[in-house]
Amino acid sequence: MKAIVYKDARQVELKEVEDARIEAETDALIRITTAGICGSDLHMYEGRSSAEKGTVLGHENMGTVIKTGSAVKSIQVGDRVVIPFNVACGFCFNCERGFTNACLTVNDDAPTGGYGYAGMGPYRGGQAELLRVPFADFNCLKLPGTVGDGLEDDFLLLSDVFPTAYHSTELAHVRPGSTVAIFGAGPVGLNAALCSVIKGASEVYVVDNVQERLQKAKDIGAIPIDFSDGDPADQIMELRKKNSLIRGALRPGEEKMAGVMCGIDAVGYQARSFGSPKKENPVQVLESLVKIINPTGNLGIVGVYTSEDPHGRNKDAKQGILNLPWGDLFEKGIAVGTGQCPVKKYNRFLRDLIISGRAKPSFIVSHRLSLEEAVDAYEKFDERNNGYTKVLLKPALGQKNAA
Amino acid sequence: MKAIVYKDARQVELKEVEDARIEAETDALIRITTAGICGSDLHMYEGRSSAEKGTVLGHENMGTVIKTGSAVKSIQVGDRVVIPFNVACGFCFNCERGFTNACLTVNDDAPTGGYGYAGMGPYRGGQAELLRVPFADFNCLKLPGTVGDGLEDDFLLLSDVFPTAYHSTELAHVRPGSTVAIFGAGPVGLNAALCSVIKGASEVYVVDNVQERLQKAKDIGAIPIDFSDGDPADQIMELRKKNSLIRGALRPGEEKMAGVMCGIDAVGYQARSFGSPKKENPVQVLESLVKIINPTGNLGIVGVYTSEDPHGRNKDAKQGILNLPWGDLFEKGIAVGTGQCPVKKYNRFLRDLIISGRAKPSFIVSHRLSLEEAVDAYEKFDERNNGYTKVLLKPALGQKNAA
Amino acid sequence: MKAIVYKDARQVELKEVEDARIEAETDALIRITTAGICGSDLHMYEGRSSAEKGTVLGHENMGTVIKTGSAVKSIQVGDRVVIPFNVACGFCFNCERGFTNACLTVNDDAPTGGYGYAGMGPYRGGQAELLRVPFADFNCLKLPGTVGDGLEDDFLLLSDVFPTAYHSTELAHVRPGSTVAIFGAGPVGLNAALCSVIKGASEVYVVDNVQERLQKAKDIGAIPIDFSDGDPADQIMELRKKNSLIRGALRPGEEKMAGVMCGIDAVGYQARSFGSPKKENPVQVLESLVKIINPTGNLGIVGVYTSEDPHGRNKDAKQGILNLPWGDLFEKGIAVGTGQCPVKKYNRFLRDLIISGRAKPSFIVSHRLSLEEAVDAYEKFDERNNGYTKVLLKPALGQKNAA
Amino acid sequence: MKAIVYKDARQVELKEVEDARIEAETDALIRITTAGICGSDLHMYEGRSSAEKGTVLGHENMGTVIKTGSAVKSIQVGDRVVIPFNVACGFCFNCERGFTNACLTVNDDAPTGGYGYAGMGPYRGGQAELLRVPFADFNCLKLPGTVGDGLEDDFLLLSDVFPTAYHSTELAHVRPGSTVAIFGAGPVGLNAALCSVIKGASEVYVVDNVQERLQKAKDIGAIPIDFSDGDPADQIMELRKKNSLIRGALRPGEEKMAGVMCGIDAVGYQARSFGSPKKENPVQVLESLVKIINPTGNLGIVGVYTSEDPHGRNKDAKQGILNLPWGDLFEKGIAVGTGQCPVKKYNRFLRDLIISGRAKPSFIVSHRLSLEEAVDAYEKFDERNNGYTKVLLKPALGQKNAA
Repeated sequence: MKAIVYKDARQVELKEVEDARIEAETDALIRITTAGICGSDLHMYEGRSSAEKGTVLGHENMGTVIKTGSAVKSIQVGDRVVIPFNVACGFCFNCERGFTNACLTVNDDAPTGGYGYAGMGPYRGGQAELLRVPFADFNCLKLPGTVGDGLEDDFLLLSDVFPTAYHSTELAHVRPGSTVAIFGAGPVGLNAALCSVIKGASEVYVVDNVQERLQKAKDIGAIPIDFSDGDPADQIMELRKKNSLIRGALRPGEEKMAGVMCGIDAVGYQARSFGSPKKENPVQVLESLVKIINPTGNLGIVGVYTSEDPHGRNKDAKQGILNLPWGDLFEKGIAVGTGQCPVKKYNRFLRDLIISGRAKPSFIVSHRLSLEEAVDAYEKFDERNNGYTKVLLKPALGQKNAA
Repeated sequence: MKAIVYKDARQVELKEVEDARIEAETDALIRITTAGICGSDLHMYEGRSSAEKGTVLGHENMGTVIKTGSAVKSIQVGDRVVIPFNVACGFCFNCERGFTNACLTVNDDAPTGGYGYAGMGPYRGGQAELLRVPFADFNCLKLPGTVGDGLEDDFLLLSDVFPTAYHSTELAHVRPGSTVAIFGAGPVGLNAALCSVIKGASEVYVVDNVQERLQKAKDIGAIPIDFSDGDPADQIMELRKKNSLIRGALRPGEEKMAGVMCGIDAVGYQARSFGSPKKENPVQVLESLVKIINPTGNLGIVGVYTSEDPHGRNKDAKQGILNLPWGDLFEKGIAVGTGQCPVKKYNRFLRDLIISGRAKPSFIVSHRLSLEEAVDAYEKFDERNNGYTKVLLKPALGQKNAA
Repeated sequence: MKAIVYKDARQVELKEVEDARIEAETDALIRITTAGICGSDLHMYEGRSSAEKGTVLGHENMGTVIKTGSAVKSIQVGDRVVIPFNVACGFCFNCERGFTNACLTVNDDAPTGGYGYAGMGPYRGGQAELLRVPFADFNCLKLPGTVGDGLEDDFLLLSDVFPTAYHSTELAHVRPGSTVAIFGAGPVGLNAALCSVIKGASEVYVVDNVQERLQKAKDIGAIPIDFSDGDPADQIMELRKKNSLIRGALRPGEEKMAGVMCGIDAVGYQARSFGSPKKENPVQVLESLVKIINPTGNLGIVGVYTSEDPHGRNKDAKQGILNLPWGDLFEKGIAVGTGQCPVKKYNRFLRDLIISGRAKPSFIVSHRLSLEEAVDAYEKFDERNNGYTKVLLKPALGQKNAA
Repeated sequence: MKAIVYKDARQVELKEVEDARIEAETDALIRITTAGICGSDLHMYEGRSSAEKGTVLGHENMGTVIKTGSAVKSIQVGDRVVIPFNVACGFCFNCERGFTNACLTVNDDAPTGGYGYAGMGPYRGGQAELLRVPFADFNCLKLPGTVGDGLEDDFLLLSDVFPTAYHSTELAHVRPGSTVAIFGAGPVGLNAALCSVIKGASEVYVVDNVQERLQKAKDIGAIPIDFSDGDPADQIMELRKKNSLIRGALRPGEEKMAGVMCGIDAVGYQARSFGSPKKENPVQVLESLVKIINPTGNLGIVGVYTSEDPHGRNKDAKQGILNLPWGDLFEKGIAVGTGQCPVKKYNRFLRDLIISGRAKPSFIVSHRLSLEEAVDAYEKFDERNNGYTKVLLKPALGQKNAA
């Protein structure tokens, strides 16, 4: 089969590799119809991970079941399915409590598994024609309809972006009437804004400096904050103070809650400095969040932080040790949720929101390309070429081109 | 001051009564700008309660603060405020746990207090020119803007209907992606549909037989079910089965979940028989809910049931004893939440949804009348005259007419 | 293998039947070391179910793994395991949300599966020498130690009684400082008292009329209430009123909370009349609970109610339709949780409580018998012979006797 | 009245000051029967705060009501009451959501109020003969009994230590069967161990280096870990690995959860270095907690961190900026709760645990002294004189001595 393979820092290639196949009774084999390129793929692409040469990339995968192992019960050949990026067994201590992001069974090296990713176990990715899915009954989410039904890209986002975004709103306790500040208007940040709106938040602020992305935030009902215009926390507080209805509802003393109740970090350790966006500043988003969140508020962190960053700017950064405003955070009594999303906790009801027409997460998709076009796309995406918000790969496009 | 006063079964009158006034240091005095007539006022109107002659009616109240007791701190003369229907102290065992619907301080006769209502303590209602609000710091919700700002009727509904509707969705565990069946398209049922949509439910069914109300349900994105067309539970299951996307997502065995996960009773003991709408059938809604809710589902009951109904059709009904499908309910493992809404738990963030423009609960309001027109409105409302979905009284209208 | 088999109303027999064996790749085969007889087995024994002749009984099972299917990963030959009474797949809509009591995969006839029980699917019970466990990775809970370590009987109770009791305390919202009334001092009721104590409840009342059982309640720190001495709700309220420390902490109005906050029904539809214990009265426990629970309280129902009772005293009772004080329940705003326990939600950490020595649920065990003695035990147990609180069967005892 | 007054760094004095008195209709006046000296009082004592000369110290207060303002309803002269350390209004945005630790009404300078503490508003402390309690209905917890009933010291601890300890277990998600590591065996740490046991935790590890305190931890059923004996996280993992029952319950892969699920920081920024206990190391406890907590675990931080520490060892430390292992924390997906305890959320049911005899938090009290002895006690306590675990002041003792 054809697959996108990691070669070396800033080099991937399209290559013939051995076909994915059924390896255990509980496996399913999927013909990929769509696979996403994720921002976290760039951690590998840029050589900031332990990814080995030859890794087949891709953890955002969907397709059609073409074969099932003899023990598979609930999924049948012909089913359209989307696959969570976490590989999970369904029966270990963590899976049985819903933490499929921390499966203890599928990866000897760490308490977590995934497709096509450094350190996440021996699972090849889905930026390819075929994908083996272990523990298929547990890991396949069945979808209705067919490839051309206009829902394919929405369903694809159930593999990672949409649930991860939703997870961030859970960690941040976003509820009806909440005030929310989201840092980062990439695919996850924008979907976090969408999820906040779906959950009935009353004010959703999205911070970034890319105009197209800020416009998308505005389109779905969020309030864009361009950090090029000044400190984003100050901007949000200023906007809230200027709003006569918000101000008019305050009783004496309540002006001490000038910020928001919920904060989301959809950026992570590779954050750009607000003042000098060409430089990284891994603590600036966290500092801003601690500033903008009100006392008793909640912070959800899904932007990736890592304990090993070969490119970190100093010894501490290389080990993921950051200099954080802990005294402020404690005095405000903020609660913080962190970590990878357990996709299965959310993907089913998010699917139902897509089915009912209430959610259209694919508004973030910028490109639909063949596998043949993927190598170039990686390069452009890595340049933070702003048009490349979200690239989806469609193996069938290449076959059409070839035909 | 002028006030609407209970006289006898099916008789209320507009009367001059002693002015409401500050009676304790913690009181505030409110000039009513809007007061609602509630479906539960009809329980008294129809003589199905222990209401005493002379009771000033009205528990849905808002207005402008014209005087405050010496101990009041957070509310000032001139503030626009809306008042929860529950009178609550803020410091008893129940209030401090958030159950302001069960205050132990304000009513010697029962663990609950309210304005202008039989058995709810010595508090006069707000279908009048003035209202005394006890424990004003705790009971007044401050509002921005002024009477003519287009938000008055939305804010009024924060006193009862909108929070009660929201409460029903909390009791029924409505969440993003939920499937919901709501029985009753009166003000509370329709607002429960609105709240379900705000919370991101994927399917919201509303059962009634009044076309105007079913149309309103449809307008906000719910699916109307007319019980004149057949058993409503069957209709919902049939609709779900016909939907090819819903059906296409099922795996083997999942067809056993043909109903919905969340059920709401927004009707109560005065429910009409589906087959013979002129007769009451107090158990039919509950029977239908137990039928339509899936195993492991949740039921929220905010439609009123009572332990004393002088008009009950038999000895059991007179004591609120009902013949219920308990075996089915147990086998399905359904959880049931019941009771009056603790308005303060929700009114602040629901206010913020109105302020941000994300909620417009006043779509149910059918009439805006003067106090002078209230007597006639009670009569029409009691006839279940279908146009009379929700009547709001505006004392200032009468003054204008008089002027 | 030898097994206890249902023959007809009030007749079971010990019989040679075909050996249990591996039937699917995901199965495990267990040699039973201990199996319980459950109160719900008597529903079948008495002919009050649809149990078919030949059913191998027993849903409380533990033993040693002697063989595993080829797809089993986490359980090995030689492992000591205890098996939840619910048979569950681990991947359907209900299992993935933790509701293993409502598995959609394992039983074509109903959304629930179990071993050796009428209507719960084609799974033979464990009152036998061998047991087939489907979806073994998901359904086996691994145990440390060996048969003679003094923990065997505690571990056996992880199959049903201990988790079901714990579940009742979850449904009833028992927490540190809670006041709890438990109706029924059978194995589940007594373990519910134990779980309430473990959770830090401050007052735990247990209602029954059997002295030995009331004594056991007292032994673990609960307060026994003998319903022979008068209305149990009145007795509890009287005791609370007499306690000068409880009374001394009340502020004005708080005497309206004279009952308890948490109520547990560990009896079900076969409840005995308080006044005439030889007669059944299926609503008396529920009536008492509604009386004793305070406004805003919670009720957990794990005593079994059924929608089909051939022995019901009238047409309604035969369908599980009960005459309940719904008006009182609503006015108090009580929330009710019902249904079978999802054992896997609790069994692992309850195991850890046994391992650490903090829980000893086996204080309820009255008999440890061979399979040969089981037929007689069923008879005695059914006579409500009071000594027979809990019978455990140990196949090895019979073999020893035989040797 | 006599009172303990802050004079300067490491100087307090017993002084005659103006009597506390009723200042508002909602106040109560208390004659102090017992007042605690808290570890956080030492932050002021040592000059590491903005405390002003003349501050009357003491935020752990109980006594007898001797006068009430005219608006006070639920508390009467003669009532025995304990007062939460947080001063709170009961009606602001934070109080109404239960966050009485972040009251917006009572302190113009910050969103939090307290007695006798720098930056917590104009409220004098209770290490004195009399105390003014604002918003008395909301802030007084009524107690039964009288001073000599053997419960006085337990009740006193309801003002801060016991609820703060309980809060830490809530932030850390301690539940039945939990594994817990608590850093710090001071009053809060030891009470956190007690609360963990009350909640049914299965393993509770307490880390310190003071033998008396470790012994007290052992006495209540916790496992003492002496950090003088080596890295405490390593010690805990070693102990768990050596326990054959714990080890025997593991399935393949579950050894990746070698630590505990719940971690509690009961130390804060003045933490001593494990290796050199005479030096401070403000990040060592947090580093150890991140090491010992399992993936998906929870961390509760109630040890105080501050945004202004004049004695901080460098510029960052002076602002409460700490160098933390954020990459590890994220990779484990740990959730962190922080901040001051909202005492009212817990004090009532913790009182009921004391009343029922199920909790005896006063096992930590080392000294019961007169106000006259307080100055000396501050000095000894500040020297970390190990015997001085918890000092309670009893004004009546001094009067007896004087008499």
